[in-house]
Amino acid sequence: MALVGVVIGSKSDADLVQPGLDMLERLGIDYEVSVISGHRNPEKLREYGLKAEERGFEILIAAAGRAAHLPGILASWTTLPVIGVPLAAGELNGIDSLLSIVQMPAGVPVACVGIGTSGAQNAALLAAQILGIKYEEIKKAYRKYKAKLAEG
Amino acid sequence: MALVGVVIGSKSDADLVQPGLDMLERLGIDYEVSVISGHRNPEKLREYGLKAEERGFEILIAAAGRAAHLPGILASWTTLPVIGVPLAAGELNGIDSLLSIVQMPAGVPVACVGIGTSGAQNAALLAAQILGIKYEEIKKAYRKYKAKLAEG
Amino acid sequence: MALVGVVIGSKSDADLVQPGLDMLERLGIDYEVSVISGHRNPEKLREYGLKAEERGFEILIAAAGRAAHLPGILASWTTLPVIGVPLAAGELNGIDSLLSIVQMPAGVPVACVGIGTSGAQNAALLAAQILGIKYEEIKKAYRKYKAKLAEG
Amino acid sequence: MALVGVVIGSKSDADLVQPGLDMLERLGIDYEVSVISGHRNPEKLREYGLKAEERGFEILIAAAGRAAHLPGILASWTTLPVIGVPLAAGELNGIDSLLSIVQMPAGVPVACVGIGTSGAQNAALLAAQILGIKYEEIKKAYRKYKAKLAEG
Amino acid sequence: MALVGVVIGSKSDADLVQPGLDMLERLGIDYEVSVISGHRNPEKLREYGLKAEERGFEILIAAAGRAAHLPGILASWTTLPVIGVPLAAGELNGIDSLLSIVQMPAGVPVACVGIGTSGAQNAALLAAQILGIKYEEIKKAYRKYKAKLAEG
Amino acid sequence: MALVGVVIGSKSDADLVQPGLDMLERLGIDYEVSVISGHRNPEKLREYGLKAEERGFEILIAAAGRAAHLPGILASWTTLPVIGVPLAAGELNGIDSLLSIVQMPAGVPVACVGIGTSGAQNAALLAAQILGIKYEEIKKAYRKYKAKLAEG
Amino acid sequence: MALVGVVIGSKSDADLVQPGLDMLERLGIDYEVSVISGHRNPEKLREYGLKAEERGFEILIAAAGRAAHLPGILASWTTLPVIGVPLAAGELNGIDSLLSIVQMPAGVPVACVGIGTSGAQNAALLAAQILGIKYEEIKKAYRKYKAKLAEG
Amino acid sequence: MALVGVVIGSKSDADLVQPGLDMLERLGIDYEVSVISGHRNPEKLREYGLKAEERGFEILIAAAGRAAHLPGILASWTTLPVIGVPLAAGELNGIDSLLSIVQMPAGVPVACVGIGTSGAQNAALLAAQILGIKYEEIKKAYRKYKAKLAEG
Repeated sequence: MALVGVVIGSKSDADLVQPGLDMLERLGIDYEVSVISGHRNPEKLREYGLKAEERGFEILIAAAGRAAHLPGILASWTTLPVIGVPLAAGELNGIDSLLSIVQMPAGVPVACVGIGTSGAQNAALLAAQILGIKYEEIKKAYRKYKAKLAEG
Repeated sequence: MALVGVVIGSKSDADLVQPGLDMLERLGIDYEVSVISGHRNPEKLREYGLKAEERGFEILIAAAGRAAHLPGILASWTTLPVIGVPLAAGELNGIDSLLSIVQMPAGVPVACVGIGTSGAQNAALLAAQILGIKYEEIKKAYRKYKAKLAEG
Repeated sequence: MALVGVVIGSKSDADLVQPGLDMLERLGIDYEVSVISGHRNPEKLREYGLKAEERGFEILIAAAGRAAHLPGILASWTTLPVIGVPLAAGELNGIDSLLSIVQMPAGVPVACVGIGTSGAQNAALLAAQILGIKYEEIKKAYRKYKAKLAEG
Repeated sequence: MALVGVVIGSKSDADLVQPGLDMLERLGIDYEVSVISGHRNPEKLREYGLKAEERGFEILIAAAGRAAHLPGILASWTTLPVIGVPLAAGELNGIDSLLSIVQMPAGVPVACVGIGTSGAQNAALLAAQILGIKYEEIKKAYRKYKAKLAEG
Repeated sequence: MALVGVVIGSKSDADLVQPGLDMLERLGIDYEVSVISGHRNPEKLREYGLKAEERGFEILIAAAGRAAHLPGILASWTTLPVIGVPLAAGELNGIDSLLSIVQMPAGVPVACVGIGTSGAQNAALLAAQILGIKYEEIKKAYRKYKAKLAEG
Repeated sequence: MALVGVVIGSKSDADLVQPGLDMLERLGIDYEVSVISGHRNPEKLREYGLKAEERGFEILIAAAGRAAHLPGILASWTTLPVIGVPLAAGELNGIDSLLSIVQMPAGVPVACVGIGTSGAQNAALLAAQILGIKYEEIKKAYRKYKAKLAEG
Repeated sequence: MALVGVVIGSKSDADLVQPGLDMLERLGIDYEVSVISGHRNPEKLREYGLKAEERGFEILIAAAGRAAHLPGILASWTTLPVIGVPLAAGELNGIDSLLSIVQMPAGVPVACVGIGTSGAQNAALLAAQILGIKYEEIKKAYRKYKAKLAEG
Repeated sequence: MALVGVVIGSKSDADLVQPGLDMLERLGIDYEVSVISGHRNPEKLREYGLKAEERGFEILIAAAGRAAHLPGILASWTTLPVIGVPLAAGELNGIDSLLSIVQMPAGVPVACVGIGTSGAQNAALLAAQILGIKYEEIKKAYRKYKAKLAEG
């Protein structure tokens, strides 16, 4: 059963997010990817958010570009933690996405990481750190990764 | 019956939006103000959006600060035109709100005006221009306003 | 008879605006494209603006890059609603165009959409929403488009 | 007869421009101030621009805030050189005005100076330098000013 | 025993962070506040990071202004998840802090929230969401808070 | 005898400035190009500035990238008007050059135009407008150019 | 004999620089403050730069706001290391000064520190670190300061 | 024995820094390059910093992209002067790195140079200026370089 639900706004964002999915696999964390546009199909996103917890997800990752509302809308529909990944999908190279994700109003947080593929990787690692609080084997996998990182 | 539905994310934004409401009144356009946070109460915003048309609204104005998703979310729930007003409610003085409102993905437009109280006034005037396409008396009211403006 | 008048500042902007024209066609909305530089030929733009209404236009779309005054100047010459599309035609990638279009002074609004081709598409959709207030068949066409969008 | 025509968009900008007017006086340059909003009264601005030369102006200074189209529109109506002064009249503190003034498209230049009161002073000094090419006494006045400046 | 370790870079930041501490208390989450400058006393921050887990912390919150390295340095010394709060403590109003916190290189994530006091509140709520994955009573407290939020 | 002195900071900037030189030629204005780095050879720039007037120049154009001090330094050494052209020669794409040129302190103005090749063209046109105050044939050439521009 | 020459562009900047002077005193480093505007009196700045070394200065600190050319010009006239302090003296709050100081072209470096009073303090500390390479007692003074800093 | 210790965060940054290394060689300054990620291997960076002085380094250069903490962390572990070089290694083209390096809090300075390869060259030249205070032959080498620069 997938612990991490990954949502991207359109198929064209898949490549930018792939390094994050690879990282989840490397860390042995089950995930499921869905393509849902928060603006084009708000009903589907609502259902996804409302049922995320009963479906077994414990954390959500949402990636989007331009006016990147996806992570924030998702956060409004669930009590699970949501990690937001700003993508550089437009003329402003992601500074618009970053501000749209990180500057959430008090009350409904999104955990924002950096722009683009390194952000996607960090979203996976952050999910591992968070799940590691509860799951010993994920904690071990993350520690092993971090030790390797230090070796260079 | 109100033609214009005005939505603000929190009561603390009311003062910034007031000049826009005054303008609607001056132009003789009926409006109704609602306070709905897109992130704190997404269900209420959804209902507002889904029923906006049957309640008789023909155009919506939504004002918000920081990661200002309110106009975009509203636009996702309705087929009515949505005017977005970015407010300078935070440390970045509204550049975050502006980008969050204007950089909507292809498919779901928001009509963005300038930041703050002059933006709120222009939202009202834009609503008048738009409604003037259908309603002759609103067109006349707007023209009268514009003529006065030219006089100085 | 064309309901939408589209103005671009130079022929070199035509490609960036084309997706918006395609969208107007898809929605069955008649439009007419004019190439008028607001700065190089202000007299022609003035005449265009002053006669826009009597020629039957009900809404105008203006796209421009750099110091994008075109939508704002057009708005000064007409009482029709003007949608502004900022183009990334220069070293600053459209942030200059965006601010030049959206930060209009109180009194003369422009409805600004996002930068570039997705902005051009959204300008067309916004025009459809606005005209849909008056024209039932445009409202239907827009709804059909929006339903398709949700299907993905 | 005034050599310099100064245009401001609204009376509320008068204080920001005053140090520039004081500088013109100090340098013994005749000027005339007009309040004309480029957007609210485009006809008046057009007439001003078209008649500027026959009225004896040899250079124009235009100051404006937010989407500061005033100098650019003026430049479109005249062949006289136009100096633009961006004012910090809004939430973005003048960066919007600066880009709106300086990023003019190829073909219609505006000579942009810095934001705010020091910009207004420099507009006056630039006008003096420019008029000094033709008028020996203005050249002398400017040189005297510059020598004083060096003394501290 | 405190589950959340809160680190601020200097006592002068305490007021900006207080709303986040109040939120932790409201949600019944034990926390401990430390004042450690990442740059002035790197040894102390290292020890804090290295011992954070054995002292029982399960999540860390770090708030800082200007070149806000504190959350990132902390993340380098621990495998616990680190939430970063950018503070507007300087001339650039927090955009420097935001970029310094969120743009971490691939490998060492920080969960960034918005600038200032609303960011501090959201850091507390994000901590609650994260701890709620493991602790049922924190999940309940967070849900209760979220339900209240929706009521207005 | 050249009326316009054009200074560029390095030979690598020559291509970006060429459209401006072409424009000067088209308008029949004599010019002379010099390559002088304000920072690498301040003595040479000083001499250039101090002798610019006696050599017959009536206006100077200086183009530079990054921290573009060249126009400002030149302005400090001469009483001639200086037009500054910001070039996008670096990672920040010219926003650094633009601010370095336009934000001159009160007392020593630079007439700033837009970034890059369109800025270079506008520098030439601005020089023509300015020289046109004194030289009837340059005024005529500029008017002819402007009339052509309007034709399209 | 003063080892550090401090230059400010105008007396109005003195307060912003004072914390840096206090720091130099605390560290027992002799300094001399001069008020020289790089643009208003370039000759005086040139003489200052050319004679800085023979007067015994080993390092220079220059602070300026807006288009802050002062440190860069100084660096062009001397082979001594120059530390630049950007001041928030204008509408753009120092981002203009920062870019004008730090983005120097290859060949003529300036050592830039942060904006404002903390930048001024850091300029003093950086000078101490640099002079400490040669002077054992300054190294000791700096180490003592750094140890105190760690104590909090 | 190397006087200058150069640290880069990852091998992928080597090319951007190479022009700086070439410059050090040209000036006859011994240096040693190390690849140490401040975030991935903080222990190694700490040891590097703590031992930098006893190993004979008199100045350090650190280059990094994105949230470029490397120079600041290094500065926290040593009393040697640290020169920071922001690299454009990411979607925001180095403005994030620049702010992360230059906006250090009062107490722990970093000497920041410009973004990218010209910044790397200037870091080398700044190191030469600084070492030249103590070493006569480096001062001579730098002066010779500067004289060549002036020749063009």
